[in-house]
Amino acid sequence: MSTKLITSTQNTFIRQLTQLIDKSRDRRKSGSFLIEGKREISLALKGDYELETILIYPELFSLEQLNDLKNKQLNIIEISKEVYQKLAYRNTTEGVLAVAKSRNHSITNLKFNTKNPLILVAEAPEKPGNIGAILRTADAANADAVIIANPKTDLYNPNIIRSSVGCVFTNQIATGSTSEIIAFLKENTINIYCAALQASVEYHTQDFTKSAAIVVGTEATGLSNEWLESSTQNIIIPMQGEIDSMNVSVAAGILIFEAKRQRNFL
Amino acid sequence: MSTKLITSTQNTFIRQLTQLIDKSRDRRKSGSFLIEGKREISLALKGDYELETILIYPELFSLEQLNDLKNKQLNIIEISKEVYQKLAYRNTTEGVLAVAKSRNHSITNLKFNTKNPLILVAEAPEKPGNIGAILRTADAANADAVIIANPKTDLYNPNIIRSSVGCVFTNQIATGSTSEIIAFLKENTINIYCAALQASVEYHTQDFTKSAAIVVGTEATGLSNEWLESSTQNIIIPMQGEIDSMNVSVAAGILIFEAKRQRNFL
Repeated sequence: MSTKLITSTQNTFIRQLTQLIDKSRDRRKSGSFLIEGKREISLALKGDYELETILIYPELFSLEQLNDLKNKQLNIIEISKEVYQKLAYRNTTEGVLAVAKSRNHSITNLKFNTKNPLILVAEAPEKPGNIGAILRTADAANADAVIIANPKTDLYNPNIIRSSVGCVFTNQIATGSTSEIIAFLKENTINIYCAALQASVEYHTQDFTKSAAIVVGTEATGLSNEWLESSTQNIIIPMQGEIDSMNVSVAAGILIFEAKRQRNFL
Repeated sequence: MSTKLITSTQNTFIRQLTQLIDKSRDRRKSGSFLIEGKREISLALKGDYELETILIYPELFSLEQLNDLKNKQLNIIEISKEVYQKLAYRNTTEGVLAVAKSRNHSITNLKFNTKNPLILVAEAPEKPGNIGAILRTADAANADAVIIANPKTDLYNPNIIRSSVGCVFTNQIATGSTSEIIAFLKENTINIYCAALQASVEYHTQDFTKSAAIVVGTEATGLSNEWLESSTQNIIIPMQGEIDSMNVSVAAGILIFEAKRQRNFL
């Protein structure tokens, strides 16, 4: 372990880190991203993410608070209050951040340990808060994978990390084009259940105990035709109110947990 | 109908309206609040909310676009672009706002048309986005009521109206202290199912076909002891991942739709 101290917000490295927070392009180019908070860093370690650097504001945090860090080769930097405040987003200041290496989320990397995987697919989800909620649900359901089709943002957007409370690190996640993903699901003979208004049957009438991908689209426009044409069966949550759509993360939760119920939560 | 024109953002009435947007206290004092958007105004009319004034930016909106407004005694004000931009939140500018009268959400006003009502209770929910998502779910489920215990904000917070896409007007909603609400539920012999980690059984093993209130707490601290002591049965959604909580609006959706499934969506 080597420790150094940075006190200036104008330091080149600190300015690079603010770019990692703000810009998807910079995250992609550098292949790294910033994680804020003790819980999130712990979950990244559990998910076998490689941490490059730990930044600590010593008045709020000491390394002993992160047991998982022991025996790791780490670059530790102590930062001043001004630098910490420049990098940290939260009010509940925890005093610790980490620079981590991005992972390759190619669909070809997906591995399933179960005979009948349960997969949640979201096409082009827009709001980081909804993506975060979906990742928390998938973690709770121990889903075999979450797949984001035609992503609008990279997974390491700070708002996704935050709203997922770190579940972006605990799930097996793939991203890719809708065409790639459909091809992958078909090759692996995974049934495709598209949440859609058209030609749908009520979700709870279906058998989700076999290999199943539950696919949800955007609230505004639903799923693309490409998904609907590849659907094993379109499913719908019966809605009996004045409006015709639910929050996408709530709808995904209802569908995935109906599958879990049918599978006796195994 | 009388129409007048306001072009100055410094106009006293316009300044009062900005206070209605920003301050819960001003909404309470005046007993009125602002609604933005055609769909939201339509749903308020369907929910029998009384509109006091309609504000229109004529380049974007004409009264004919809101059929429900015909034959209503309304105070119509045309506003300039500057005034509209001061009042409007959205990027998708629709050009119409309405001032509406608040409703009394006392628990004693609740009326049930069904023998075995299904009620969703949320204690002290904090994020307007979660409250909005819960209201959308309750609308879709045609829940008999949504009850907010120990509310942290008033229902007419613009972020709640927006994230509920107007479902704050389509649901029967009551607010009150946890004590009041528990007393009300017991008087009406409604079973209380508290989502809790302690002394819980898995949610799907319970029979929700009788009168049922499903009660969810905050993500940070869960339900207060007062609820847990009054519970008919604590219920839990089995969680098999790394973290121990889901988004509160997702959890509420899973529970309420399990009740709907058991009730055959009647």
